[in-house]
Amino acid sequence: MRPHDDLEQLEELFPYLEQFQALATRHGIDDIFQDNGGKLLQVLLLTGLKVIAGREGNDAIDANGNEYELKTVNVLKQKQFTTHHHLNPRILQKYRLVPWIFAVYEGIKIISIYRVSPSDLEAFFAKWEAKWHADGSKDINNPKIPLKHVIAVGTLLFQTTEDTALFQQ
Amino acid sequence: MRPHDDLEQLEELFPYLEQFQALATRHGIDDIFQDNGGKLLQVLLLTGLKVIAGREGNDAIDANGNEYELKTVNVLKQKQFTTHHHLNPRILQKYRLVPWIFAVYEGIKIISIYRVSPSDLEAFFAKWEAKWHADGSKDINNPKIPLKHVIAVGTLLFQTTEDTALFQQ
Repeated sequence: MRPHDDLEQLEELFPYLEQFQALATRHGIDDIFQDNGGKLLQVLLLTGLKVIAGREGNDAIDANGNEYELKTVNVLKQKQFTTHHHLNPRILQKYRLVPWIFAVYEGIKIISIYRVSPSDLEAFFAKWEAKWHADGSKDINNPKIPLKHVIAVGTLLFQTTEDTALFQQ
Repeated sequence: MRPHDDLEQLEELFPYLEQFQALATRHGIDDIFQDNGGKLLQVLLLTGLKVIAGREGNDAIDANGNEYELKTVNVLKQKQFTTHHHLNPRILQKYRLVPWIFAVYEGIKIISIYRVSPSDLEAFFAKWEAKWHADGSKDINNPKIPLKHVIAVGTLLFQTTEDTALFQQ
C-alpha cells in the first residue's frame, strides 16, 4: 500500500509546490528543484537581495546595485562551503571584488545567513592562487571555505529564532 | 509591500515543502532542491522505480533488480536530454548495458515518461565514441539526445491525462 499512499500524498502536496514555484519564478528562479533554487528563494526573501538574470552561479544584487557572491551549505551533509568546479585566477579576480553571502541550512530549512568581506577570505584566495600556479595552471576542483571561518569573521544577517514563524520546529 | 507579502507566502507554504522533503527522504532523495530531486520523486512514485543509494547520477532500480539510466528534460527550456558532463568510453559502456527512462516536464510538472532500449540509442553512442577518439580522447561535454527521437522509439509509460488528478491544470 505504501507506494499508492505516497503517490496520493504527492498529489495533495503538488498544488503547494506549484505555488512555491510561481513565487520563485517571480523572483527570477526558473526551477526550484535545480541548483538549490528553492533554498535560494529563502535567502532572497530574507535579505531583500535579487538574483542577476542570465548570470551563471548564484550571484545576487542589492537595491543599490552592489553585487554579492552567494554560497549555501547543508550542515547535515558537510561543514564547509564549496566554491567553483574549475577555480582559476579569472574566477578569483571576481571573488576578490564583491562581498560574500553565506547561507546555512539544515536540510531544506535555513538556519543563518552571514556576510563576509572579500578581505576576510583573502587567505584562502591567495592559497588557491599559489596552488593553481604551482600545479601548472591547473584549475582547482571546488576548494572549500570552512563554516567555522565564516562564523568567526562574518556579520550575522539572519538567524533562526523561536519568534521566526517560518523556521519554528 | 511585495517582499513582505512574499515572505509571508513562503512561511505559509514552507510546512508543505517540509512534508514533501520528508516524503522524498523516505524514497532516498536527500535534497529536493538539488539535481532535480523533487522531479525525480515524481518519476519514482509513478513508475515504482527506486533510486540506488550512494550512486552518482540518476540511476534507478526496479523490483526485479534491473538498473535504469534516468534522464529528465524541461520542455519549457529545451527539447533534448543532456547526458554527462564528461562523457567517455567508460560512461558509454555503462550506457549500453541498461534501459533508459526519459521523463518529460513542463516546468516542475511531469508530462510523460518513456522507456528506451539502449539499442535504440546506439546510433548516438557510436557517434559520440567516434568523436571521442577523433578528438584525441577528449571527454565530451554533455552530448544530447533529442526528445523527438525518444518519442519516436520509446515506449510510453505514463502520460498526463485529465483523469490524472495530480497533473490537472
